[in-house]
Amino acid sequence: MTAVAANRPGRLMAAEIAEQPAVWRRLLADGPGAGLDAAAAEIRRRAPRTVLFVARGTSDHAALYAKYLVEIGLGLPAGLVSPSTMTAYGARPDLRDVLMIGVSQSGGSPDLVRSLEVARAQGALTAAVTNDATSALARIAHVHVDVLAGAERSVAATKSYTAQLLALYLLLDRVRQVGEAGQGGELAAVLPDLADGVLARDSEIAAIAQRYRFAQRMITTARGYSYATAREAALKLMETAYVSAQAFSGADLLHGPLALVDPQVPVLAVMAEGVGGAAMEQVLPRLAERRADVCCVGHPAAVAQAAAGFALPAGVPEALSPLLEIIPFQLLALHMAVARGGDPDAPRGLSKITETL
Amino acid sequence: MTAVAANRPGRLMAAEIAEQPAVWRRLLADGPGAGLDAAAAEIRRRAPRTVLFVARGTSDHAALYAKYLVEIGLGLPAGLVSPSTMTAYGARPDLRDVLMIGVSQSGGSPDLVRSLEVARAQGALTAAVTNDATSALARIAHVHVDVLAGAERSVAATKSYTAQLLALYLLLDRVRQVGEAGQGGELAAVLPDLADGVLARDSEIAAIAQRYRFAQRMITTARGYSYATAREAALKLMETAYVSAQAFSGADLLHGPLALVDPQVPVLAVMAEGVGGAAMEQVLPRLAERRADVCCVGHPAAVAQAAAGFALPAGVPEALSPLLEIIPFQLLALHMAVARGGDPDAPRGLSKITETL
Repeated sequence: MTAVAANRPGRLMAAEIAEQPAVWRRLLADGPGAGLDAAAAEIRRRAPRTVLFVARGTSDHAALYAKYLVEIGLGLPAGLVSPSTMTAYGARPDLRDVLMIGVSQSGGSPDLVRSLEVARAQGALTAAVTNDATSALARIAHVHVDVLAGAERSVAATKSYTAQLLALYLLLDRVRQVGEAGQGGELAAVLPDLADGVLARDSEIAAIAQRYRFAQRMITTARGYSYATAREAALKLMETAYVSAQAFSGADLLHGPLALVDPQVPVLAVMAEGVGGAAMEQVLPRLAERRADVCCVGHPAAVAQAAAGFALPAGVPEALSPLLEIIPFQLLALHMAVARGGDPDAPRGLSKITETL
Repeated sequence: MTAVAANRPGRLMAAEIAEQPAVWRRLLADGPGAGLDAAAAEIRRRAPRTVLFVARGTSDHAALYAKYLVEIGLGLPAGLVSPSTMTAYGARPDLRDVLMIGVSQSGGSPDLVRSLEVARAQGALTAAVTNDATSALARIAHVHVDVLAGAERSVAATKSYTAQLLALYLLLDRVRQVGEAGQGGELAAVLPDLADGVLARDSEIAAIAQRYRFAQRMITTARGYSYATAREAALKLMETAYVSAQAFSGADLLHGPLALVDPQVPVLAVMAEGVGGAAMEQVLPRLAERRADVCCVGHPAAVAQAAAGFALPAGVPEALSPLLEIIPFQLLALHMAVARGGDPDAPRGLSKITETL
């Protein structure tokens, strides 16, 4: 690597985006090392009736994804906790029969640690999903899953996000499949190779990024599992390229925000193969009426019908699609940031670990 | 009223904003007529252990507010349901011991009706909070609360939103205060007069609107109960003035979106008197570092410390602050829309009742 390359803007982010297939392979190969089996066994033993998640930022999007896994796959009600109720407001809810899962890359944010501490005292079974087995969050929880992403140096989280998605998928799959653990892992086993294929098409994303070089505002939208992708994509665009990117569920978009769509506000629609992508078909004609500039990231048939897009591999189970879907957006944020003269490894105003109270 | 005035852009929205104190007085005076007492009695009888909300758009912000009331006031875990899991994905979660509350102005959106129908079949106690006692949502639910806002003609919901806030506050207060119903009502009784006072200061808001005449992007932020205000304020600005307005909890803002803040992205910070406002004091210095243009809407002491702002009456209990807080934002959205040549009564691309599947 030359001296110039070593200082290239976004090199940390680029390296960690590229590292994702390797991270997933590690996690798929070492379920016991990640703590997946032990955590799943304890959750099954306690048989919670409600699942709550507590998280911030990118990790909150992994939690949003997992909320769909719980509601659809486990058949349990699920919610995202507002951490301030148990920290700042001192709420002490009755959490017996509740599983509370804290999701955090660093495992260090005081409000999350305190939330899990309170939840444990209030009767909840607590689980931590982090990238640091020695973190305060991992220590306070009854069970811990290590997402095994390795040290993350880029301020914009990428590999830790998809590692969280995969860890949550594998954990909840083990909880669901009593005595037949592994089916989810088999389905997920193809993902690293597919991700390599997506990463190899970086130049396609670079071309898309050029087209958005001067866009100040963007909208991302999806439904179902992929709503988490839309949310995380918007955050990446905000924190690296400083775009005012807004994510909406396709349904919520029609309940008001559609009015702000015009040809100057590009829309990035995520359409997975399955129920969520099909539900987006109600949204696309409404965007066309507003003469929106739409780019579709999704399964090949959806992209073929769109004016512009990026086709992902066909045949991926919908519940696993978010792992692949986010990669083009991570690359897009990186390329847009660099094209605008920024350095996504040093976004203004941010540091790697954010501590909120 | 002259012919010109009858066609004045935003006249419906203006009239309904102004009607809010009268709507609140009606609801405060007629708890039995609204169904509050019967609904609270049934909820107490069933003693749910978890509360879930299902809603879209503006009503989703009322649900977000109520989630804080449940977590803090009732000491129960609460969550916002993703309607698609029970409709599009066919999830059939075990909802025994769960109270599911559907919030909707019209009570007519098929996905919400279907969600409540499934929830009821899955064992939940179901409640509908709507502005139409004859709606499908009201009929399908075990109990119904009528927010008594009267026919809402403006596409941008205003009076139905604060009526939902008040109805949810009064309902959950009655659930909480076994045998001593009315304390919450007494606290809320001062709100209509205070709202009259806020409405009388319309010219102050008109001046603030002029200052934002050319802003394309805005950020709203708050913590705690007032986070719902930030969310609803952003939606009003989007759907009437077509601003790309983004709402963040003060904590989440620090986890990434802070990077997009610069002097060209004005920030509207909501600071209630109490825990939520105090928690925002961690956020303001970070905004100052980014040289943000901040306008504070909140209690007098907070506004006095800010460079610009709109002071709300002091001494309002924090849990009731969102009712007053949203009024300046409703007026701001109206004034900005009109100043930009739009008609907030006919926002492009929207109709009054949005039906999502």
